[in-house]
This record gives sequence, C-alpha cells and structure tokens, in this order.
Amino acid sequence: MPKSDKYAIGVDLGGTNIKIGIVSEKGTIIKKNSLDTLASGGPESVISQIKKGVKGILQKNKLKIQGIGIGAPGVVSTKKGTVENPPNLPGWEKVNLGKILEKEFKINVHVENDANVAAIGEMIFGAGKKLDSFIMITLGTGVGGGIIFNRKLFRGETGAAGEIGHMSIDYNGLKCNCGSYGCIETYMGNNYIIKRVAGELESHKDSKIWELINNDLNKLTPLIIHQAASLGDEFSVQAIKDLGVYLGAALASTANVLDVGTFIIGGGVAGFGDLLLDSVCEKTKERVLKPLSKRIKILPAKLKNDAGIKGASALVFYKS
Amino acid sequence: MPKSDKYAIGVDLGGTNIKIGIVSEKGTIIKKNSLDTLASGGPESVISQIKKGVKGILQKNKLKIQGIGIGAPGVVSTKKGTVENPPNLPGWEKVNLGKILEKEFKINVHVENDANVAAIGEMIFGAGKKLDSFIMITLGTGVGGGIIFNRKLFRGETGAAGEIGHMSIDYNGLKCNCGSYGCIETYMGNNYIIKRVAGELESHKDSKIWELINNDLNKLTPLIIHQAASLGDEFSVQAIKDLGVYLGAALASTANVLDVGTFIIGGGVAGFGDLLLDSVCEKTKERVLKPLSKRIKILPAKLKNDAGIKGASALVFYKS
Repeated sequence: MPKSDKYAIGVDLGGTNIKIGIVSEKGTIIKKNSLDTLASGGPESVISQIKKGVKGILQKNKLKIQGIGIGAPGVVSTKKGTVENPPNLPGWEKVNLGKILEKEFKINVHVENDANVAAIGEMIFGAGKKLDSFIMITLGTGVGGGIIFNRKLFRGETGAAGEIGHMSIDYNGLKCNCGSYGCIETYMGNNYIIKRVAGELESHKDSKIWELINNDLNKLTPLIIHQAASLGDEFSVQAIKDLGVYLGAALASTANVLDVGTFIIGGGVAGFGDLLLDSVCEKTKERVLKPLSKRIKILPAKLKNDAGIKGASALVFYKS
Repeated sequence: MPKSDKYAIGVDLGGTNIKIGIVSEKGTIIKKNSLDTLASGGPESVISQIKKGVKGILQKNKLKIQGIGIGAPGVVSTKKGTVENPPNLPGWEKVNLGKILEKEFKINVHVENDANVAAIGEMIFGAGKKLDSFIMITLGTGVGGGIIFNRKLFRGETGAAGEIGHMSIDYNGLKCNCGSYGCIETYMGNNYIIKRVAGELESHKDSKIWELINNDLNKLTPLIIHQAASLGDEFSVQAIKDLGVYLGAALASTANVLDVGTFIIGGGVAGFGDLLLDSVCEKTKERVLKPLSKRIKILPAKLKNDAGIKGASALVFYKS
C-alpha cells in the first residue's frame, strides 16, 4: 500500500456485535475484528470493549490514523458526540461516547447514527462516489434513511433528518412501532414482510415457498422468498414486485419534497436484487411529479459486508 | 419614511391578476397596482403588461430601488430566470422573464416560483422572521410548499423542492392531477374539500350548511363551511377537524424526513383558523417521531393580502 494513504478507524456499534477496523482513505480494510456486544453490562462494559478493541487493532501498527469514526444506533448528537437511548443497548440514557474516546486516544472522534453512516459510507466509498446528491435507504429490521445533498449530509435541526422509514404511505395503515400508522417500515421491515407474506401464503398453496420451508411458516425469511422467486415461483415474484409498489410510493413523496432523484438502496432486503429495484424504479417514476420522473435512479448500495466499518471510517475522511 | 430604507419592486404574476408594488425593506407597501392578466395574448402581451406596470409604479418616484422580484407559477429556474409551462398562462413554453426585464430596467431581477416566494416572504417579513428553519404550506386550489433551512431556501437539485402538496398519505387514494394517488392536495385542495364535504352533507340533513347554501350544493365553498362552524354546526366543525387528520399525516412524514419542527400555514383554507391549526398540530404531534413531537409548532402565516407582492419583493432583500 502506498505511503501517502491516510487511515481511519471505523467502529460499527450494534446491539449484537461491535465491529472495528482500520480503513484506508481508498476504502480498503487493512485489519478488522468483531466482538459480541456485552450489552447487558450497560455502557461501562460496552465502552470498555470498544477501548480494548481499538487498542487491540492498533497494536503492532505504524499507520498514521487520522481519527476514529463511530456508527451508533439511537439518537446521536454529532456536535456533542453523545449517543442517546440506543435500542438494544440497555442503560444508555445519554452517553458522551465521543468525549470518552477522545480522552482515551487523544485523537478526533466522530459519532453519527448508523443510517447517516450508511449514507456517508456510500458517498465516500460506494455508489454515491460521483453523485452530488442522493438519498440512502437501508432495508433491514427497520427502514433507515440518510440524505446527501451537494456532498453534505442534510441533518435537519437536530441531526435526525432522513427518517424515511417513518414516512407514512397510508394514514390509516398498520400501527408502526413509532406510534404512527402506515409508515413504510410497516411494509418493508423484515418482520412485517414475513408476516404479510405468511398471511398471503395461506391462499397460495401452490407456491414453491411451502417446500422450501418444509410447510413450517416459522421458517419463512426474506431469503426464502428470494430463493423461491429465483426458482420462478410466481407468488414470490409478485410479493417482491409488490414491495416496489410500497417503497415506490414513499420514494416518490420523498423525491417530491426534496427534489432529489437518486436513491441508493442497501441492507438485507435489498438482496431481492433487480426484481425489487426495477419495480421500485418503475413505481417511483409513475408516481413522482412529471419533471422529476426522468431523473429517478434507483441504485444498489456498493458497500455490502463491512459497510458499517467502512461507513464509520468515512466519517473521518468526510470531516477532514 | 426614513431615508435609509431600501426598496424593491415585487411582482406577483398570476393567471388572473398581475399585482405590482414597491415594498420597503421593512415590508411596507409604498405603492401598488393590480392588472387583469391578458393571459390569452400569450407571453408577449403579459410581459408587455408587466413592463408597463413596473414603469407606471416607478413614475414620480425617487426611491432607490434595489431590484425586482417576481413570483411566478410553473417551473422556475432561479439561476436562469426562466418560467416554464405555468398553469393558466397559455403559450409560455419557456420564457426568460428575468433576462427580458433586466434588459428593460437595467436592474437585478429575481424570479422564483410562487410557493417558494411565500416561504421567503414569511421568512423576511412574516411569521418566520425569527426562525432559522420552517416549512411553509400554502392551502389553496392546490397545496404548495417551501422549505427554509438555516435561513436559506432549500431548492433541491433543480429548484423544485418543497412539493409537499404531492406527498401521498394513501398510496391507494384518490387520483391527483399530478398522476399519483392520495396526494395531500387531494384532501386539502379547495375543490377536493368542497366535493368531499358536499358528498358527506347528503347524510347530514341537519347541518346548518344547508341553510347557508339555500339547499344548493353548487354554492358550497370553504368559507361557507367556516361560517357554519362558527355558528356551532357540529358537522362543519368535524369536517375542519378531519382536515387536521389528513394534513397532520403529511406534516408528520415531512417533519420526520427533514427534522424540521415548525410549519407556517397560509392560503385561503388556512382561514379556517385555530380550529384547523389546532387539529393539525394535535395530529402532527401524535404521528411524528417521539423526539420531534415536542418541537412541532403550527403557525398561521402573517402575510395575508399582498403576500404575493411582499414575498416577491423579499426575493430582492433575501438575495442582497
């Protein structure tokens, strides 16, 4: 690797794993490790894990590290470096993770919420490298979003902008975890997809899914739906296309409000591939205001594995 | 008036009227006039009207004019000063109104679409004077929107941002003029309100509205609904509160995406007053993400009559 490269540490803090890596300015992971998060020990034990993990990865390492970037769940104040009430991390009412780690390592620390980290990661290293503006959508258990406008993250008043998962496409729809109704998360979130498809399967006894799950609906996952669709199962193909109807409605509204035409789609459910993305693109174009329609582009995210580490390290390169 | 004041000309270009005024930096209208738009004559005749109107208002006038601001319907390119396909102005495929008037008057000319003009007007002279960020919503035949973030208009990629009227609150809802379904405009636009309320009236024979319209549904207007509500008519009160349910759903989604908590509501339907605004506020707070809920504020617009002239002139003060 050339000596001129700059390096950063990326920390992907989750309720299950903490992933830590050294990443070059070009987005290459030089070294990485992963720990099981000792979440039940509260912030003290988790912070201690992060400290040890960062020290471990820095051992026998002479690279010039520009800073540490951290992607964290929950409400993150980027200015202050605080993490507030992250789901799956009990006891974290409000923790100044940035300050704690700056004190320990005497280096710049940037903390950002994980949906924004995904957006910055794609901008610096991924599908958004050459784009001025785009909207990042992460499809997983929840639906996350981040807005990049003119190569900057649009943060809103408190850093919480981009919650596209909680755009409602039916004000009378299913109740969402957030308390509202018909949020796109209630159509596209993993568990919602599984529940809805399981319900519809009852009246589609000829679907290839039944064989794949051994007639046990508890075994239904998005991956199974994908597999069945790949085998030409019409029911599964339609189920995936239907997701495009829902997401297309949310993206059209988002594009109308922001006048941004490009969306980058990542996360597990994006694994449905072109079948999903083509349907999303078609439906978004159909619904969005005419002058915007021809500018709509739906791109798959480029950062797959290690997206969390790379995105977090991108915070350092983005800032500097 | 103090000599130190600066002045601008504001032109409110509409399909029915052209309103022109001289406005001080403090938002006082010094002089104004209004012409019937000779729309059928195409751009040439309308532009000639604007030129004559501006000349007329400048006569016997020694004020130092900083520039001309124009609010126009349709797609406006602020950079180029072009107006494209404005509804109700036939023959305007793409007209460089900015350049034409700059050449005529040898002065800065700023052209902006009318929804953004309303937002800038409220920021400079109205309810947004002391706000860093807010979202302007104009309720009329259509539903317009403009986003002010950190005292700047958020324009998006092409200047079309803020089309909150075309945020869908029901992906399976009524077909909208824009081609999509369930846009908030199909709930809050004047004609949609009248049509919906007229339909509901059939099963509410005891409503006071029937007397006010002499049993002639063709006479139903938003103003009549407001009058009936003021007389304590329960049906009308409920109809106005229902509007809050619809608009609240759209504003909650908008606030979630932008992380902006303040909305300024203007336009004719905003005349429903506190009954509407309180309902919108309650419903938006109920639906928006918890951390945002306490920051939600729904304010009435301050610029009422002459909002178009004042807003257009504000373009000059905003720019300089």
